[in-house]
Amino acid sequence: MNMPLTDDALDQLFREARTYNGYHDKPVTTDQLHAIWDLMKMGPTSANMLPARLVWCHSEEARNKLADCSAEGNQDKIRKAPAAVVIGMDQDFHDHLPELFPHTDAKSWFEGDAEARKVHAMRNSSLQGAYFILAARALGLDTGPMSGFDNDAVDKAFFADQPSVRSNFISTLGYGDPETIFERSPRPEFGKFNKII
Amino acid sequence: MNMPLTDDALDQLFREARTYNGYHDKPVTTDQLHAIWDLMKMGPTSANMLPARLVWCHSEEARNKLADCSAEGNQDKIRKAPAAVVIGMDQDFHDHLPELFPHTDAKSWFEGDAEARKVHAMRNSSLQGAYFILAARALGLDTGPMSGFDNDAVDKAFFADQPSVRSNFISTLGYGDPETIFERSPRPEFGKFNKII
Repeated sequence: MNMPLTDDALDQLFREARTYNGYHDKPVTTDQLHAIWDLMKMGPTSANMLPARLVWCHSEEARNKLADCSAEGNQDKIRKAPAAVVIGMDQDFHDHLPELFPHTDAKSWFEGDAEARKVHAMRNSSLQGAYFILAARALGLDTGPMSGFDNDAVDKAFFADQPSVRSNFISTLGYGDPETIFERSPRPEFGKFNKII
Repeated sequence: MNMPLTDDALDQLFREARTYNGYHDKPVTTDQLHAIWDLMKMGPTSANMLPARLVWCHSEEARNKLADCSAEGNQDKIRKAPAAVVIGMDQDFHDHLPELFPHTDAKSWFEGDAEARKVHAMRNSSLQGAYFILAARALGLDTGPMSGFDNDAVDKAFFADQPSVRSNFISTLGYGDPETIFERSPRPEFGKFNKII
């Protein structure tokens, strides 16, 4: 059985971690992008479907392209961040299930049911988006997740070659500059949104 | 700036953590349920909307009620686990935004747009579901997340008093018994689902 992680680790992952609007002038390496994936891919998804499709915008050109599809208040954050990522979701994820979930015919559960695939792609790519945020934090990096962008424009700019992929959300990535964060929004006590029965 | 967590911590959170089908005969306390919430609530959601509504099935009666709404292959896991949880999502989360995101009128962004609220509730409660999984692991516990249940039956059984809440997914919780896990499903290399541009 495992023990709780140290207080420092819990602070880094949850309690002191914040959403950053700006980053220190320190690059994020491609090795770090691989390291994030190697952690986040281990997180559970339904039938190991792993529907997330990630486009890492590492070059200035790619970040500018993403910024151009984003809400005005987010553009500058994306242009100036060391890296950004588009978390897409493949609504035809079931085509990969024979490889990802080899011990049974899970592909047949989803064939002919595009509506169920949309729901599963959204739920499970969002789980993977959270694994991305926490994997980055576990590796000492910070993130700035955002929904303020034009989904159709991002799909056209980044997934034109994969028509079954839709954007879910986007994030910046780097070493967060504490001067760029807002005051922490309130987090409610257990009783507000939880019940024990 | 933060350093990467230790290898042991990364193993516990991601690399060695597994989805459990059965648990050791060791109870989960209500203090632990509160501790999980106190970590998971710190994870980011859009405009701090925190749409997840959690019903912790701690009593045998509650677990049996949840098992009765679940796929046959999941019923026994739920009945025998020390605890289970229903992760619901409030599609009227915007009513809480004046309290949760007090510095601007975020409620007005979602009023009259039930379709956008459904998408945001699904995305952000799924993020919170992943925070639940990783918070439990960070505290030394194990989970068994599942989508194999009858959503309408769960909504009727657990959220009848909150008509704007729909079930997203469910999970068992406890100290995982390694004898109940399956062989790890394959996790693809970076190149399969990632691009760097």
